[in-house]
Amino acid sequence: MPPGRRLRAKVAAVRGRVKRRRERLETDARRAQLLELGMRLFAERTYDEISMDDLAREAGVSKGLVYHYFKTKRDFYVAGLREIARDLLEKTTTHSPDLPPAERIRRGLDAYLDHVRAHARAFVALMRGGIGSDPEVSSVIEGVRAAYVDRFLSDLMGTPLAAFATSNKMIRTALRGWLGFVEAASLDWLTHDDVDRARMRDMILELLLATLRAAGAPITP
Amino acid sequence: MPPGRRLRAKVAAVRGRVKRRRERLETDARRAQLLELGMRLFAERTYDEISMDDLAREAGVSKGLVYHYFKTKRDFYVAGLREIARDLLEKTTTHSPDLPPAERIRRGLDAYLDHVRAHARAFVALMRGGIGSDPEVSSVIEGVRAAYVDRFLSDLMGTPLAAFATSNKMIRTALRGWLGFVEAASLDWLTHDDVDRARMRDMILELLLATLRAAGAPITP
Repeated sequence: MPPGRRLRAKVAAVRGRVKRRRERLETDARRAQLLELGMRLFAERTYDEISMDDLAREAGVSKGLVYHYFKTKRDFYVAGLREIARDLLEKTTTHSPDLPPAERIRRGLDAYLDHVRAHARAFVALMRGGIGSDPEVSSVIEGVRAAYVDRFLSDLMGTPLAAFATSNKMIRTALRGWLGFVEAASLDWLTHDDVDRARMRDMILELLLATLRAAGAPITP
Repeated sequence: MPPGRRLRAKVAAVRGRVKRRRERLETDARRAQLLELGMRLFAERTYDEISMDDLAREAGVSKGLVYHYFKTKRDFYVAGLREIARDLLEKTTTHSPDLPPAERIRRGLDAYLDHVRAHARAFVALMRGGIGSDPEVSSVIEGVRAAYVDRFLSDLMGTPLAAFATSNKMIRTALRGWLGFVEAASLDWLTHDDVDRARMRDMILELLLATLRAAGAPITP
């Protein structure tokens, strides 16, 4: 191939890659945009109250385009839920390794309570059953719980409890129980809206210590 | 009406009542029998694994008769679940008002853990979602939780915590959270089967005290 043609071919190939990349970015961006809108809708209304028509109308796009990205309303919901879950895990992570563990957890709990408050309707519907029976939905919820248990266990690894935590199945069961406490208490808190957020957070934090202690961890009162 | 005829009419009326009563009892007995069998089936298998055909075959009756008592499999399941819930509340009630509260609760927890162990598959399926999204199913589960919160609050009424408990919304939120703890920890316990039942019970009881304390109740450690 003569040098001129080789160069043109190379430029065309690069242009093609750039174009495909831009298209993919646009596709990703539009999908992300639809998901963001969907998350807002699911925060305000329940699964049954939202249709693909609503979504297309609010996004100002055709229903066909929505179906191009998400095959069914369920697919759309699950994708949105994954985003919310990712967002929850991200927001409840305190990137300050120098803070004492209790303070890191306190900040994480504040972020958790803010998050469920912001998605109150969706959270209540999800925890009360709702579409919760769907295997994919359950797996997202389970993923969040497992991530929290892992996070707490790895947080403990840097403490004098490390040797205790690795050898003890009670810790796993206890932390699972504590997550159940957090979810059930949050559900009651959102439903009745008559308990102060700071008191909720302090109660949940105190219960975490009590849970570890009840599981036999050598924590002094 | 001459006395003889009047007497015969009276006897016939009484006989009619007796007959209808016996038929009703037989109907109730047969329905109860089907439910009992169903509860056993749901304890061994999940909702999706059981068909009305299975039920009829195992009961040795026609499918038509099963449908005479229960319109759908869902109706049958909900009726069975109500029985299990009634049974759970009954078995976890310790009818010994002279026992100290902690001992009554300890016995109740043992009964609870035995009960969920006996219905392990059904409990896990129910708590993991399963048919849990059904409004009637949710209402049975919610009914059990509300009954437990009421029971604990009325148990507290006989203690020095009475004045505290009635005025405090945190106690309600905290007890709801504790029930969430019990359910989530039990689910983990049944799934992994690597934690001793007595340790589970002691941990759950210790957490109840910690929960009341964290809600601000004046309980000494």
